[in-house]
Amino acid sequence: MSPIQVMVNGLPGSVSQIVATQILKDERFELVPFSLTGPEIQQPEFSLESVKINLIRPEKRNSQIKDVIKSHEGLLSVDYTHPSAVNANAEFYCRCRLPFVMGTTGGDRKKLEQIVVSSSIAAVIAPNMAKQIVGFQAMMAYAADTFPGLFKGYSLEIRESHQSGKADTSGTAKAMVGYFNELGVSFTEEEILKIRDPEVQKTQWGIPEQYLAGHGWHTYKLVSEDRTVRFEFTHNVNGRMVYTHGTLDALLFLSAKVDAGVKGRVYDMIDVLKRV
Amino acid sequence: MSPIQVMVNGLPGSVSQIVATQILKDERFELVPFSLTGPEIQQPEFSLESVKINLIRPEKRNSQIKDVIKSHEGLLSVDYTHPSAVNANAEFYCRCRLPFVMGTTGGDRKKLEQIVVSSSIAAVIAPNMAKQIVGFQAMMAYAADTFPGLFKGYSLEIRESHQSGKADTSGTAKAMVGYFNELGVSFTEEEILKIRDPEVQKTQWGIPEQYLAGHGWHTYKLVSEDRTVRFEFTHNVNGRMVYTHGTLDALLFLSAKVDAGVKGRVYDMIDVLKRV
Repeated sequence: MSPIQVMVNGLPGSVSQIVATQILKDERFELVPFSLTGPEIQQPEFSLESVKINLIRPEKRNSQIKDVIKSHEGLLSVDYTHPSAVNANAEFYCRCRLPFVMGTTGGDRKKLEQIVVSSSIAAVIAPNMAKQIVGFQAMMAYAADTFPGLFKGYSLEIRESHQSGKADTSGTAKAMVGYFNELGVSFTEEEILKIRDPEVQKTQWGIPEQYLAGHGWHTYKLVSEDRTVRFEFTHNVNGRMVYTHGTLDALLFLSAKVDAGVKGRVYDMIDVLKRV
Repeated sequence: MSPIQVMVNGLPGSVSQIVATQILKDERFELVPFSLTGPEIQQPEFSLESVKINLIRPEKRNSQIKDVIKSHEGLLSVDYTHPSAVNANAEFYCRCRLPFVMGTTGGDRKKLEQIVVSSSIAAVIAPNMAKQIVGFQAMMAYAADTFPGLFKGYSLEIRESHQSGKADTSGTAKAMVGYFNELGVSFTEEEILKIRDPEVQKTQWGIPEQYLAGHGWHTYKLVSEDRTVRFEFTHNVNGRMVYTHGTLDALLFLSAKVDAGVKGRVYDMIDVLKRV
Protein backbone atom coordinates (compact mmCIF):
# COMPACT_ATOMS: atom_id res chain seq x y z
CA MET A 1 0.00 0.00 0.00
CA SER A 2 1.37 3.41 -0.91
CA PRO A 3 1.50 5.93 1.94
CA ILE A 4 -1.38 8.36 2.49
CA GLN A 5 -0.52 11.86 1.25
CA VAL A 6 -1.23 14.46 3.95
CA MET A 7 -1.10 18.25 3.95
CA VAL A 8 -0.96 19.67 7.49
CA ASN A 9 -2.41 23.16 7.58
CA GLY A 10 -1.67 25.71 10.29
CA LEU A 11 2.13 25.67 10.22
CA PRO A 12 4.15 27.09 11.90
CA GLY A 13 1.56 26.71 14.73
CA SER A 14 2.65 24.46 17.57
CA VAL A 15 0.01 21.72 17.27
CA SER A 16 0.51 21.57 13.49
CA GLN A 17 4.23 21.15 14.07
CA ILE A 18 3.73 18.19 16.42
CA VAL A 19 1.28 16.51 14.03
CA ALA A 20 3.46 17.14 10.96
CA THR A 21 6.54 15.79 12.76
CA GLN A 22 4.70 12.61 13.66
CA ILE A 23 3.42 12.17 10.09
CA LEU A 24 6.97 12.60 8.84
CA LYS A 25 8.09 9.73 11.09
CA ASP A 26 5.22 7.36 10.28
CA GLU A 27 5.69 5.34 7.11
CA ARG A 28 1.96 4.91 6.64
CA PHE A 29 1.90 8.60 5.68
CA GLU A 30 3.75 11.00 3.44
CA LEU A 31 3.94 14.64 4.45
CA VAL A 32 3.21 16.94 1.51
CA PRO A 33 5.56 19.98 1.60
CA PHE A 34 2.79 22.59 1.55
CA SER A 35 0.74 24.14 4.36
CA LEU A 36 -2.05 26.70 4.36
CA THR A 37 -1.08 29.42 6.79
CA GLY A 38 -2.65 32.56 8.26
CA PRO A 39 -2.53 36.17 6.94
CA GLU A 40 -0.23 37.18 9.82
CA ILE A 41 2.57 34.80 8.76
CA GLN A 42 5.30 36.53 6.72
CA GLN A 43 7.82 33.71 6.26
CA PRO A 44 7.49 31.89 2.89
CA GLU A 45 8.55 28.51 4.17
CA PHE A 46 9.06 26.48 7.30
CA SER A 47 11.71 23.85 7.96
CA LEU A 48 10.59 20.73 9.72
CA GLU A 49 13.57 18.49 10.40
CA SER A 50 15.10 18.18 6.92
CA VAL A 51 11.92 19.06 5.01
CA LYS A 52 11.18 22.54 3.66
CA ILE A 53 7.45 23.25 3.69
CA ASN A 54 5.95 25.98 1.54
CA LEU A 55 3.58 28.18 3.52
CA ILE A 56 0.62 29.22 1.39
CA ARG A 57 -0.95 32.51 2.48
CA PRO A 58 -4.74 32.97 2.10
CA GLU A 59 -4.54 35.14 -1.04
CA LYS A 60 -2.38 32.54 -2.83
CA ARG A 61 -4.32 29.39 -1.96
CA ASN A 62 -6.74 29.46 -4.91
CA SER A 63 -3.98 29.63 -7.49
CA GLN A 64 -1.62 27.15 -5.80
CA ILE A 65 -3.89 24.37 -4.54
CA LYS A 66 -4.65 22.82 -7.94
CA ASP A 67 -1.04 21.85 -8.54
CA VAL A 68 -0.69 20.47 -5.03
CA ILE A 69 -3.76 18.26 -5.46
CA LYS A 70 -2.78 17.20 -8.97
CA SER A 71 0.70 16.10 -7.91
CA HIS A 72 -0.43 14.19 -4.77
CA GLU A 73 -3.00 11.54 -5.51
CA GLY A 74 -5.52 10.87 -2.75
CA LEU A 75 -4.43 13.96 -0.83
CA LEU A 76 -5.99 14.50 2.61
CA SER A 77 -5.86 17.68 4.63
CA VAL A 78 -5.49 18.20 8.38
CA ASP A 79 -6.57 21.51 9.88
CA TYR A 80 -4.98 22.84 13.06
CA THR A 81 -5.35 26.54 12.28
CA HIS A 82 -7.41 29.14 14.15
CA PRO A 83 -11.06 29.35 15.28
CA SER A 84 -11.58 32.37 12.98
CA ALA A 85 -10.47 30.32 9.95
CA VAL A 86 -12.54 27.17 10.57
CA ASN A 87 -15.50 27.95 8.31
CA ALA A 88 -13.58 29.60 5.47
CA ASN A 89 -11.12 26.71 5.41
CA ALA A 90 -13.90 24.11 5.35
CA GLU A 91 -15.52 25.90 2.42
CA PHE A 92 -12.19 25.95 0.64
CA TYR A 93 -11.62 22.21 1.17
CA CYS A 94 -15.12 21.40 -0.05
CA ARG A 95 -14.71 23.58 -3.14
CA CYS A 96 -11.39 21.88 -3.98
CA ARG A 97 -12.82 18.41 -3.18
CA LEU A 98 -10.12 17.90 -0.58
CA PRO A 99 -11.25 15.54 2.25
CA PHE A 100 -10.17 16.86 5.64
CA VAL A 101 -9.71 16.20 9.34
CA MET A 102 -10.72 19.30 11.31
CA GLY A 103 -8.88 19.49 14.61
CA THR A 104 -9.43 23.22 15.06
CA THR A 105 -12.09 24.23 17.59
CA GLY A 106 -14.45 27.22 17.36
CA GLY A 107 -16.21 28.83 14.43
CA ASP A 108 -19.80 28.07 13.46
CA ARG A 109 -19.94 24.29 14.02
CA LYS A 110 -23.39 23.85 12.49
CA LYS A 111 -22.37 25.64 9.32
CA LEU A 112 -19.18 23.59 9.27
CA GLU A 113 -21.15 20.39 9.23
CA GLN A 114 -23.65 21.63 6.65
CA ILE A 115 -21.01 22.63 4.14
CA VAL A 116 -19.58 19.10 4.19
CA VAL A 117 -22.97 17.42 3.94
CA SER A 118 -23.82 19.43 0.83
CA SER A 119 -20.37 18.83 -0.70
CA SER A 120 -18.86 15.87 -2.53
CA ILE A 121 -16.25 15.09 0.14
CA ALA A 122 -16.07 13.31 3.48
CA ALA A 123 -14.55 14.82 6.63
CA VAL A 124 -13.73 13.96 10.23
CA ILE A 125 -14.65 16.84 12.52
CA ALA A 126 -13.37 16.40 16.07
CA PRO A 127 -12.83 19.19 18.58
CA ASN A 128 -11.11 16.60 20.81
CA MET A 129 -8.76 14.11 19.16
CA ALA A 130 -7.84 12.32 22.42
CA LYS A 131 -9.47 8.96 21.68
CA GLN A 132 -9.54 7.68 25.24
CA ILE A 133 -11.16 10.85 26.58
CA VAL A 134 -13.74 10.78 23.79
CA GLY A 135 -14.35 7.13 24.72
CA PHE A 136 -14.80 8.04 28.38
CA GLN A 137 -17.26 10.80 27.40
CA ALA A 138 -19.19 8.21 25.41
CA MET A 139 -19.31 5.97 28.51
CA MET A 140 -20.75 8.87 30.50
CA ALA A 141 -23.28 9.64 27.77
CA TYR A 142 -24.31 5.98 27.78
CA ALA A 143 -24.77 5.97 31.57
CA ALA A 144 -26.74 9.24 31.51
CA ASP A 145 -28.99 7.79 28.85
CA THR A 146 -29.39 4.30 30.33
CA PHE A 147 -29.43 5.00 34.07
CA PRO A 148 -30.89 8.48 34.61
CA GLY A 149 -30.70 9.45 38.28
CA LEU A 150 -28.03 6.83 39.12
CA PHE A 151 -26.12 9.30 41.31
CA LYS A 152 -29.13 11.07 42.80
CA GLY A 153 -28.25 12.61 46.15
CA TYR A 154 -24.51 12.55 45.46
CA SER A 155 -22.45 15.73 45.73
CA LEU A 156 -20.00 16.52 42.95
CA GLU A 157 -16.67 18.30 42.72
CA ILE A 158 -15.00 19.00 39.37
CA ARG A 159 -11.44 20.29 39.17
CA GLU A 160 -9.55 20.96 35.96
CA SER A 161 -6.07 22.32 35.34
CA HIS A 162 -4.74 23.70 32.04
CA GLN A 163 -1.84 25.90 30.92
CA SER A 164 -2.24 29.51 32.10
CA GLY A 165 -2.92 30.72 28.55
CA LYS A 166 -6.27 28.91 28.46
CA ALA A 167 -8.86 31.47 29.49
CA ASP A 168 -12.10 29.52 29.18
CA THR A 169 -13.28 26.52 31.19
CA SER A 170 -12.43 23.06 29.79
CA GLY A 171 -14.97 22.02 27.16
CA THR A 172 -14.66 18.40 28.28
CA ALA A 173 -15.47 19.35 31.89
CA LYS A 174 -18.49 21.36 30.71
CA ALA A 175 -19.76 18.41 28.66
CA MET A 176 -19.38 16.19 31.73
CA VAL A 177 -21.57 18.54 33.80
CA GLY A 178 -24.41 17.78 31.38
CA TYR A 179 -24.00 14.03 31.86
CA PHE A 180 -23.80 14.33 35.65
CA ASN A 181 -26.99 16.42 35.63
CA GLU A 182 -28.78 13.62 33.78
CA LEU A 183 -27.39 11.17 36.33
CA GLY A 184 -29.24 13.09 39.01
CA VAL A 185 -26.53 15.41 40.34
CA SER A 186 -27.19 19.15 40.75
CA PHE A 187 -24.15 21.02 39.47
CA THR A 188 -23.52 24.03 37.22
CA GLU A 189 -20.62 24.85 34.91
CA GLU A 190 -19.79 27.81 37.16
CA GLU A 191 -18.95 25.42 40.00
CA ILE A 192 -16.07 23.84 38.05
CA LEU A 193 -12.82 24.58 39.88
CA LYS A 194 -10.47 26.03 37.26
CA ILE A 195 -6.72 25.97 38.00
CA ARG A 196 -4.46 28.18 35.85
CA ASP A 197 -1.72 29.19 38.31
CA PRO A 198 1.54 27.35 37.40
CA GLU A 199 2.75 27.57 40.99
CA VAL A 200 -0.36 25.79 42.30
CA GLN A 201 -0.17 23.29 39.43
CA LYS A 202 3.40 22.43 40.28
CA THR A 203 3.28 22.33 44.05
CA GLN A 204 -0.28 21.22 44.84
CA TRP A 205 -1.16 19.11 41.80
CA GLY A 206 2.27 17.68 41.01
CA ILE A 207 2.11 18.56 37.34
CA PRO A 208 5.61 18.06 35.82
CA GLU A 209 7.43 21.32 35.10
CA GLN A 210 7.84 20.60 31.37
CA TYR A 211 4.07 20.27 30.97
CA LEU A 212 2.99 23.42 32.81
CA ALA A 213 2.74 25.10 29.39
CA GLY A 214 0.60 22.33 27.89
CA HIS A 215 -1.62 19.95 29.86
CA GLY A 216 -5.23 19.08 30.60
CA TRP A 217 -5.96 17.45 33.94
CA HIS A 218 -9.51 16.64 35.06
CA THR A 219 -10.93 15.05 38.21
CA TYR A 220 -14.59 14.36 38.98
CA LYS A 221 -15.43 13.37 42.56
CA LEU A 222 -18.83 12.05 43.63
CA VAL A 223 -19.75 11.50 47.29
CA SER A 224 -22.99 9.90 48.48
CA GLU A 225 -25.36 11.77 50.76
CA ASP A 226 -24.39 9.66 53.80
CA ARG A 227 -20.72 10.02 52.75
CA THR A 228 -20.10 6.23 52.78
CA VAL A 229 -19.55 5.98 49.01
CA ARG A 230 -17.00 7.86 46.92
CA PHE A 231 -16.40 7.67 43.18
CA GLU A 232 -13.51 9.46 41.51
CA PHE A 233 -12.74 9.67 37.80
CA THR A 234 -9.50 11.26 36.61
CA HIS A 235 -8.04 11.84 33.16
CA ASN A 236 -4.72 13.66 33.00
CA VAL A 237 -3.05 14.55 29.72
CA ASN A 238 0.50 15.94 29.56
CA GLY A 239 1.57 17.59 26.33
CA ARG A 240 -0.13 16.91 23.04
CA MET A 241 1.01 13.46 21.91
CA VAL A 242 -2.42 11.95 22.64
CA TYR A 243 -4.05 14.35 20.16
CA THR A 244 -1.47 13.46 17.53
CA HIS A 245 -2.21 9.75 17.84
CA GLY A 246 -5.91 10.49 17.45
CA THR A 247 -5.28 12.65 14.40
CA LEU A 248 -3.37 9.87 12.66
CA ASP A 249 -6.20 7.44 13.44
CA ALA A 250 -8.70 9.92 12.02
CA LEU A 251 -6.61 10.19 8.82
CA LEU A 252 -6.48 6.39 8.39
CA PHE A 253 -10.23 6.23 8.95
CA LEU A 254 -10.92 9.06 6.48
CA SER A 255 -8.66 7.53 3.85
CA ALA A 256 -10.63 4.27 4.03
CA LYS A 257 -13.90 6.19 3.66
CA VAL A 258 -12.57 8.10 0.64
CA ASP A 259 -11.40 4.82 -0.92
CA ALA A 260 -14.91 3.44 -0.37
CA GLY A 261 -16.31 6.38 -2.31
CA VAL A 262 -18.10 8.09 0.59
CA LYS A 263 -19.17 11.65 -0.17
CA GLY A 264 -20.98 14.39 1.75
CA ARG A 265 -20.56 12.76 5.16
CA VAL A 266 -19.27 14.08 8.46
CA TYR A 267 -17.67 11.68 10.95
CA ASP A 268 -16.59 12.33 14.53
CA MET A 269 -14.12 10.62 16.85
CA ILE A 270 -16.79 8.21 18.08
CA ASP A 271 -17.05 6.93 14.51
CA VAL A 272 -13.27 6.62 14.36
CA LEU A 273 -13.26 4.72 17.67
CA LYS A 274 -16.01 2.40 16.51
CA ARG A 275 -14.30 2.00 13.13
CA VAL A 276 -17.76 2.35 11.53
CA MET B 1 -50.67 2.42 48.87
CA SER B 2 -50.22 -0.10 51.65
CA PRO B 3 -46.62 -0.91 52.60
CA ILE B 4 -44.80 -3.85 51.00
CA GLN B 5 -44.55 -6.82 53.36
CA VAL B 6 -40.97 -8.08 53.59
CA MET B 7 -39.41 -11.08 55.30
CA VAL B 8 -35.64 -10.67 55.73
CA ASN B 9 -33.94 -14.06 55.87
CA GLY B 10 -30.53 -14.67 57.39
CA LEU B 11 -31.01 -13.05 60.82
CA PRO B 12 -29.11 -12.67 63.09
CA GLY B 13 -26.44 -12.26 60.33
CA SER B 14 -24.93 -8.78 60.13
CA VAL B 15 -26.06 -7.82 56.61
CA SER B 16 -29.58 -9.07 57.33
CA GLN B 17 -29.65 -6.92 60.46
CA ILE B 18 -28.69 -3.77 58.55
CA VAL B 19 -31.28 -4.45 55.83
CA ALA B 20 -34.02 -5.34 58.35
CA THR B 21 -33.28 -2.21 60.38
CA GLN B 22 -33.60 -0.03 57.28
CA ILE B 23 -36.87 -1.71 56.26
CA LEU B 24 -38.20 -1.08 59.75
CA LYS B 25 -37.46 2.64 59.36
CA ASP B 26 -38.89 3.00 55.84
CA GLU B 27 -42.64 3.50 55.70
CA ARG B 28 -42.86 2.07 52.19
CA PHE B 29 -42.18 -1.32 53.77
CA GLU B 30 -43.39 -3.42 56.65
CA LEU B 31 -41.00 -5.85 58.29
CA VAL B 32 -42.60 -9.24 58.85
CA PRO B 33 -41.53 -10.68 62.27
CA PHE B 34 -40.17 -13.95 60.86
CA SER B 35 -36.80 -14.87 59.42
CA LEU B 36 -35.41 -18.09 57.99
CA THR B 37 -32.20 -18.87 59.80
CA GLY B 38 -29.41 -21.45 59.60
CA PRO B 39 -29.10 -24.83 61.35
CA GLU B 40 -26.31 -23.47 63.58
CA ILE B 41 -28.56 -20.84 65.19
CA GLN B 42 -29.95 -21.93 68.56
CA GLN B 43 -31.83 -18.81 69.71
CA PRO B 44 -35.59 -18.91 68.92
CA GLU B 45 -35.97 -15.19 68.33
CA PHE B 46 -34.03 -12.03 67.65
CA SER B 47 -34.81 -8.53 68.88
CA LEU B 48 -34.40 -5.75 66.39
CA GLU B 49 -35.04 -2.41 68.06
CA SER B 50 -38.48 -2.99 69.62
CA VAL B 51 -39.50 -5.82 67.30
CA LYS B 52 -39.19 -9.50 68.23
CA ILE B 53 -38.47 -11.61 65.17
CA ASN B 54 -39.12 -15.37 65.15
CA LEU B 55 -36.16 -17.29 63.79
CA ILE B 56 -37.32 -20.25 61.72
CA ARG B 57 -34.81 -23.11 61.60
CA PRO B 58 -34.57 -25.24 58.41
CA GLU B 59 -36.51 -28.20 59.79
CA LYS B 60 -39.42 -25.94 60.79
CA ARG B 61 -39.76 -23.87 57.63
CA ASN B 62 -42.12 -26.17 55.75
CA SER B 63 -44.66 -26.24 58.52
CA GLN B 64 -44.43 -22.54 59.44
CA ILE B 65 -44.21 -20.72 56.11
CA LYS B 66 -47.86 -21.22 55.08
CA ASP B 67 -49.19 -19.20 57.98
CA VAL B 68 -46.62 -16.45 57.40
CA ILE B 69 -47.60 -16.15 53.72
CA LYS B 70 -51.31 -16.34 54.47
CA SER B 71 -51.18 -13.58 57.05
CA HIS B 72 -49.02 -11.18 54.95
CA GLU B 73 -50.52 -10.43 51.57
CA GLY B 74 -48.04 -9.80 48.76
CA LEU B 75 -45.15 -11.02 50.89
CA LEU B 76 -41.65 -10.66 49.41
CA SER B 77 -38.54 -12.33 50.70
CA VAL B 78 -34.95 -11.00 50.94
CA ASP B 79 -32.12 -13.49 51.22
CA TYR B 80 -28.84 -12.57 52.96
CA THR B 81 -27.97 -16.02 54.26
CA HIS B 82 -24.99 -18.22 53.32
CA PRO B 83 -23.48 -19.44 50.03
CA SER B 84 -24.25 -23.03 51.03
CA ALA B 85 -27.96 -22.19 51.43
CA VAL B 86 -28.49 -20.27 48.18
CA ASN B 87 -29.89 -23.09 46.03
CA ALA B 88 -31.97 -24.79 48.70
CA ASN B 89 -33.50 -21.45 49.71
CA ALA B 90 -34.34 -20.56 46.12
CA GLU B 91 -36.06 -23.91 45.67
CA PHE B 92 -38.00 -23.30 48.85
CA TYR B 93 -39.13 -19.82 47.73
CA CYS B 94 -40.20 -21.17 44.34
CA ARG B 95 -42.13 -24.04 45.89
CA CYS B 96 -43.94 -21.62 48.24
CA ARG B 97 -44.50 -19.10 45.41
CA LEU B 98 -42.68 -16.47 47.40
CA PRO B 99 -40.98 -13.87 45.14
CA PHE B 100 -37.49 -13.04 46.38
CA VAL B 101 -34.48 -10.77 46.20
CA MET B 102 -31.30 -12.86 46.41
CA GLY B 103 -28.44 -10.85 47.88
CA THR B 104 -26.42 -13.89 48.93
CA THR B 105 -23.44 -14.77 46.72
CA GLY B 106 -22.16 -18.25 45.90
CA GLY B 107 -23.92 -21.51 45.23
CA ASP B 108 -24.72 -22.81 41.76
CA ARG B 109 -25.77 -19.59 39.98
CA LYS B 110 -26.97 -21.32 36.84
CA LYS B 111 -29.20 -23.67 38.77
CA LEU B 112 -30.44 -20.70 40.79
CA GLU B 113 -31.60 -18.96 37.65
CA GLN B 114 -33.14 -22.09 36.15
CA ILE B 115 -35.27 -22.85 39.17
CA VAL B 116 -36.86 -19.38 38.98
CA VAL B 117 -37.41 -19.55 35.22
CA SER B 118 -39.29 -22.84 35.58
CA SER B 119 -41.30 -21.57 38.57
CA SER B 120 -44.34 -19.32 38.83
CA ILE B 121 -42.54 -16.48 40.63
CA ALA B 122 -40.28 -13.55 39.74
CA ALA B 123 -36.96 -12.81 41.48
CA VAL B 124 -34.17 -10.26 41.55
CA ILE B 125 -30.80 -12.01 41.75
CA ALA B 126 -27.91 -9.64 42.39
CA PRO B 127 -24.54 -10.60 43.84
CA ASN B 128 -23.79 -6.85 44.10
CA MET B 129 -26.56 -4.55 45.31
CA ALA B 130 -24.48 -1.34 45.11
CA LYS B 131 -26.35 0.36 42.28
CA GLN B 132 -23.67 2.86 41.37
CA ILE B 133 -20.96 0.20 41.15
CA VAL B 134 -23.21 -1.99 39.03
CA GLY B 135 -23.83 1.09 36.84
CA PHE B 136 -20.10 1.71 36.52
CA GLN B 137 -19.54 -1.94 35.56
CA ALA B 138 -22.20 -1.52 32.88
CA MET B 139 -20.33 1.55 31.58
CA MET B 140 -17.17 -0.52 31.33
CA ALA B 141 -19.02 -3.37 29.60
CA TYR B 142 -20.43 -0.85 27.12
CA ALA B 143 -16.96 0.58 26.39
CA ALA B 144 -15.42 -2.91 26.00
CA ASP B 145 -18.17 -3.80 23.59
CA THR B 146 -18.25 -0.56 21.63
CA PHE B 147 -14.58 0.45 21.56
CA PRO B 148 -12.47 -2.72 21.66
CA GLY B 149 -8.79 -1.86 21.96
CA LEU B 150 -9.43 1.72 23.17
CA PHE B 151 -6.64 1.47 25.76
CA LYS B 152 -4.22 -0.60 23.68
CA GLY B 153 -0.65 -0.05 24.84
CA TYR B 154 -1.73 1.27 28.25
CA SER B 155 -0.39 -0.30 31.44
CA LEU B 156 -2.84 -1.08 34.21
CA GLU B 157 -2.68 -1.23 37.99
CA ILE B 158 -5.59 -2.50 40.08
CA ARG B 159 -5.64 -2.13 43.85
CA GLU B 160 -8.46 -3.26 46.12
CA SER B 161 -8.83 -3.18 49.88
CA HIS B 162 -11.38 -5.13 51.95
CA GLN B 163 -11.80 -6.17 55.60
CA SER B 164 -9.19 -8.74 56.66
CA GLY B 165 -11.83 -11.50 56.86
CA LYS B 166 -12.29 -11.47 53.07
CA ALA B 167 -9.98 -14.18 51.74
CA ASP B 168 -10.74 -14.09 48.01
CA THR B 169 -10.03 -11.30 45.52
CA SER B 170 -12.82 -8.77 44.94
CA GLY B 171 -15.35 -10.10 42.42
CA THR B 172 -15.87 -6.60 41.07
CA ALA B 173 -12.14 -6.16 40.44
CA LYS B 174 -12.03 -9.53 38.66
CA ALA B 175 -14.96 -8.56 36.43
CA MET B 176 -13.15 -5.31 35.57
CA VAL B 177 -10.06 -7.24 34.42
CA GLY B 178 -12.24 -8.84 31.73
CA TYR B 179 -13.42 -5.45 30.47
CA PHE B 180 -9.90 -4.01 30.47
CA ASN B 181 -8.68 -7.03 28.49
CA GLU B 182 -11.31 -6.33 25.84
CA LEU B 183 -10.21 -2.69 25.84
CA GLY B 184 -6.76 -3.86 24.75
CA VAL B 185 -4.92 -4.02 28.08
CA SER B 186 -2.92 -7.13 29.04
CA PHE B 187 -3.63 -7.90 32.67
CA THR B 188 -4.47 -11.01 34.71
CA GLU B 189 -6.54 -11.44 37.87
CA GLU B 190 -3.37 -12.53 39.68
CA GLU B 191 -1.90 -9.04 39.20
CA ILE B 192 -4.63 -7.41 41.29
CA LEU B 193 -3.05 -5.86 44.37
CA LYS B 194 -5.07 -7.17 47.32
CA ILE B 195 -4.85 -5.25 50.62
CA ARG B 196 -6.12 -6.98 53.77
CA ASP B 197 -3.80 -5.62 56.47
CA PRO B 198 -5.75 -3.18 58.72
CA GLU B 199 -2.54 -1.31 59.59
CA VAL B 200 -1.76 -0.63 55.92
CA GLN B 201 -5.40 0.24 55.28
CA LYS B 202 -5.41 2.79 58.08
CA THR B 203 -2.03 4.41 57.60
CA GLN B 204 -1.39 4.16 53.86
CA TRP B 205 -4.89 4.20 52.41
CA GLY B 206 -6.59 6.44 54.96
CA ILE B 207 -9.53 4.11 55.50
CA PRO B 208 -11.48 5.33 58.55
CA GLU B 209 -10.99 3.16 61.65
CA GLN B 210 -14.70 2.34 62.01
CA TYR B 211 -14.77 0.85 58.51
CA LEU B 212 -11.67 -1.35 58.72
CA ALA B 213 -14.04 -4.26 59.50
CA GLY B 214 -16.29 -3.54 56.52
CA HIS B 215 -15.26 -1.73 53.35
CA GLY B 216 -14.56 -2.24 49.65
CA TRP B 217 -12.14 0.20 48.02
CA HIS B 218 -11.07 -0.15 44.39
CA THR B 219 -8.74 1.87 42.17
CA TYR B 220 -7.93 1.21 38.51
CA LYS B 221 -5.01 3.19 37.04
CA LEU B 222 -4.22 3.28 33.32
CA VAL B 223 -1.05 4.88 31.95
CA SER B 224 -0.28 5.32 28.25
CA GLU B 225 2.82 3.80 26.69
CA ASP B 226 4.57 7.19 26.42
CA ARG B 227 3.36 7.99 29.98
CA THR B 228 1.73 11.28 28.92
CA VAL B 229 -1.83 10.12 29.63
CA ARG B 230 -3.22 8.80 32.90
CA PHE B 231 -6.74 7.61 33.69
CA GLU B 232 -7.81 6.68 37.19
CA PHE B 233 -11.16 5.27 38.29
CA THR B 234 -11.94 4.83 41.97
CA HIS B 235 -14.96 3.50 43.85
CA ASN B 236 -14.71 3.36 47.61
CA VAL B 237 -17.48 1.95 49.77
CA ASN B 238 -17.44 2.25 53.57
CA GLY B 239 -19.81 0.01 55.51
CA ARG B 240 -22.86 -1.57 53.95
CA MET B 241 -25.44 1.21 53.62
CA VAL B 242 -25.02 1.31 49.84
CA TYR B 243 -26.06 -2.35 49.58
CA THR B 244 -29.09 -1.68 51.75
CA HIS B 245 -30.28 1.14 49.49
CA GLY B 246 -29.92 -1.17 46.49
CA THR B 247 -31.85 -3.93 48.24
CA LEU B 248 -34.78 -1.63 48.94
CA ASP B 249 -34.78 -0.52 45.29
CA ALA B 250 -34.77 -4.16 44.21
CA LEU B 251 -37.76 -4.84 46.49
CA LEU B 252 -39.74 -1.91 45.04
CA PHE B 253 -38.90 -3.12 41.54
CA LEU B 254 -39.88 -6.72 42.32
CA SER B 255 -43.14 -5.64 43.95
CA ALA B 256 -44.12 -3.76 40.77
CA LYS B 257 -43.31 -6.85 38.66
CA VAL B 258 -45.38 -9.09 40.94
CA ASP B 259 -48.29 -6.62 40.72
CA ALA B 260 -47.98 -6.73 36.94
CA GLY B 261 -48.35 -10.53 37.09
CA VAL B 262 -44.83 -11.42 35.95
CA LYS B 263 -43.92 -15.08 36.57
CA GLY B 264 -40.86 -17.22 35.94
CA ARG B 265 -38.50 -14.31 35.32
CA VAL B 266 -35.11 -13.43 36.76
CA TYR B 267 -34.03 -9.80 36.97
CA ASP B 268 -30.65 -8.34 37.89
CA MET B 269 -29.51 -4.95 39.20
CA ILE B 270 -29.11 -3.61 35.66
CA ASP B 271 -32.84 -4.19 35.20
CA VAL B 272 -33.51 -2.43 38.49
CA LEU B 273 -31.31 0.49 37.41
CA LYS B 274 -33.03 0.73 34.06
CA ARG B 275 -36.42 0.31 35.70
CA VAL B 276 -37.37 -2.10 32.88
